[in-house]
Amino acid sequence: MTQIEAARQGIITQQMAEVARQENRDPEFIRAGVAQGLIVILANPAHPAGRPLGVGQGLRTKVNANLGTSTDQAEPELEISKAQAAVDAGADSLMDLSTGGDLARLRRGILEKFPQALGTVPVYETAVKTVRQGGRVVDMTPADMLAAIREQGREGVDFMTVHAGVTQEGVARLCNQGRITDIVSRGGAFIAEWMIQNNQENPYYSGFEEILAICREFDITLSLGDGLRPGCLEDATDRAQVQELIVLGELAQKARAAGVQAMIEGPGHVPLDQIQANIILQKRLCAGAPFYVLGPLVTDVAAGYDHISCAIGGAVAAAAGADFLCYVTPTEHLRLPLVEDVREGVVAARIAAHAADLAKGVPGAMEWDKKMARARKALDWNQQIELAIDPARAKKVRESASPKLEEVCTMCGDFCAMKGIQQYLKKRN
Amino acid sequence: MTQIEAARQGIITQQMAEVARQENRDPEFIRAGVAQGLIVILANPAHPAGRPLGVGQGLRTKVNANLGTSTDQAEPELEISKAQAAVDAGADSLMDLSTGGDLARLRRGILEKFPQALGTVPVYETAVKTVRQGGRVVDMTPADMLAAIREQGREGVDFMTVHAGVTQEGVARLCNQGRITDIVSRGGAFIAEWMIQNNQENPYYSGFEEILAICREFDITLSLGDGLRPGCLEDATDRAQVQELIVLGELAQKARAAGVQAMIEGPGHVPLDQIQANIILQKRLCAGAPFYVLGPLVTDVAAGYDHISCAIGGAVAAAAGADFLCYVTPTEHLRLPLVEDVREGVVAARIAAHAADLAKGVPGAMEWDKKMARARKALDWNQQIELAIDPARAKKVRESASPKLEEVCTMCGDFCAMKGIQQYLKKRN
Repeated sequence: MTQIEAARQGIITQQMAEVARQENRDPEFIRAGVAQGLIVILANPAHPAGRPLGVGQGLRTKVNANLGTSTDQAEPELEISKAQAAVDAGADSLMDLSTGGDLARLRRGILEKFPQALGTVPVYETAVKTVRQGGRVVDMTPADMLAAIREQGREGVDFMTVHAGVTQEGVARLCNQGRITDIVSRGGAFIAEWMIQNNQENPYYSGFEEILAICREFDITLSLGDGLRPGCLEDATDRAQVQELIVLGELAQKARAAGVQAMIEGPGHVPLDQIQANIILQKRLCAGAPFYVLGPLVTDVAAGYDHISCAIGGAVAAAAGADFLCYVTPTEHLRLPLVEDVREGVVAARIAAHAADLAKGVPGAMEWDKKMARARKALDWNQQIELAIDPARAKKVRESASPKLEEVCTMCGDFCAMKGIQQYLKKRN
Repeated sequence: MTQIEAARQGIITQQMAEVARQENRDPEFIRAGVAQGLIVILANPAHPAGRPLGVGQGLRTKVNANLGTSTDQAEPELEISKAQAAVDAGADSLMDLSTGGDLARLRRGILEKFPQALGTVPVYETAVKTVRQGGRVVDMTPADMLAAIREQGREGVDFMTVHAGVTQEGVARLCNQGRITDIVSRGGAFIAEWMIQNNQENPYYSGFEEILAICREFDITLSLGDGLRPGCLEDATDRAQVQELIVLGELAQKARAAGVQAMIEGPGHVPLDQIQANIILQKRLCAGAPFYVLGPLVTDVAAGYDHISCAIGGAVAAAAGADFLCYVTPTEHLRLPLVEDVREGVVAARIAAHAADLAKGVPGAMEWDKKMARARKALDWNQQIELAIDPARAKKVRESASPKLEEVCTMCGDFCAMKGIQQYLKKRN
């Protein structure tokens, strides 16, 4: 029985109880959310080291870190180091987006080593295998596409991006309308290429019932991918994107009916003033399904600093109701990230998620900030470092300068406002 | 005649014409904005290297970089290097907040070297002088406080933070209400300490007419400081802060009436969901005066990454109508920044400002992003690097990895979506 099936029968599973503990919520709150499809629990029972992760309404905003090899850089040890850095920096989940080297071996290694929910995009493996066998991406067979989902589900992958919403109707609307960057989703591009070359409907769309059967078997949470997401601000919230979102809402409804958990993936590149509308639209069109956003990036020109562009968009998206933020690293649009880039990306996304949780009033979020504020007022530096989002970084920066008065910092030195005002306010009171 | 006096007489000054050129706006648009007090032009004619800078409604959001010595770190050459780094990274203005070493010499050095508008907080110099003469901060005399404004105005300082809004009424409300972090503004703390010790009204408030006379003489733009700004999220938008903002609105009105340009300074630490309300409140209470915000930081726990917290808050603030963003560096709350911290801080604030300009529809803002999107689609890496917000950084990251196919990057390698989809879409069309 999947989590959503159990929830509908009124059963509080072990995974729901665990999520309730993590979130300081009543188990019944979690069960009701899962039953309605407003919360998903990423927890494939086959994930060897797995720990359930709740994503959705009323829960802490989660952060995902992407990793994985490419055809240009395929060292599995490096990817494991990146996964470790992501987890150490506080990532809630990992996605293995590998397209180079031994895909299955790396994926299984991650599943064995890390309890964090693991996501994949199975079409990558299908495409890579097809190309290695001498074919082109467009030579993938629908049977191979389903087989990859099944195989990865059996291994324990907790959630999978499936671009089932890229339809002939959507691609036609995209072409009819015109875009600057056309399709920038790797999986979305594979599918659209296949559809154009073979002049057939998307196999993930036409074979959606079979996908649901596999997902139900392993309790894989479907992450319905936005293959037509905008790749620049000018393309944002256009007819192609919204057309696909309508289809994703229909597919999420089918998934729920079939006892399969589903969330929706979102853009991408979106101007700041369109983000809230995007969240409202997703929540309405998809009946409140959890929203997993990549960014959104609020400008196209921040290459080298896209983690900051992402933090701005992610914070606003999550404050408006997005539930799950996919990080972006400083090397986005330039190269595959390395370990330090992963760390920077995770911390930036966590700042965004926490800022949103404060705005949304997620229980307990404000306590953290109040503790930090009290530690600052008390000039208690050990506590300030402990409470920092990245204590090691805060410690390093603090220790790189030595104030003459050890209770202050070198910014204001003798003229520290926090320190100076205290005695006078006491005098006044 | 000051800019606002000239504007009211229907005169388009050389400075207004220059700002119009910078902003791609009609000179009459600038004149009308200055006349109404909705735009200020930071341009003290005595600034030797000075170039006018427009700040306010309908203009590009500007970014300020703070620098300056402290009692713990007082190397003027380092501060000049920081100023240079800020300007190279695209800062529109500089504030010299020095409290260590030879204050006047460093300030004059900056005024001679940099055309960017220079701001100061004159009470720092008054406090430092008083302490060096053996007194305490609370021993400053009102005459000394005015003298510092006059001296710095004569030297060419373009805008000055004056904490005239910290009144006995405001301090009483702050004490009566209770706060975690009390007062965190350095200048605000000096003034409140003075007021409590001497049991008198704030000399900047009671002597505001004299300040206006000095500002009018040198066309110094008053930056009415928020001495009671919140120092943590829990203290945000409280009665003390709003009480002071009401007073600042009254003072801005007096400034306009006296032919003095004025802008308002804003918080500080503000939860994401309160930022828009803060901007609306400021614009209403201060009759549309330009709003210059420090941050706002959207969480208290991001020490080591406060430039990211600031970018989130600054983008949302500017999109809602804030006109001028004061950067925050990664070392905020930990130590005085060094050169690299300054660079990071400026770029983060520029990303926020540009994201907001896209949202506000500032003319020309979207063109930059469209050019970048077209360069991406064309796989034109030279153009992508040229168009990046920090081309040197983008180039360095790009060149640190070598894709086998030089038209793509190592993220997707052979499976680049941008590259792959093009031929199929052509085939379809």
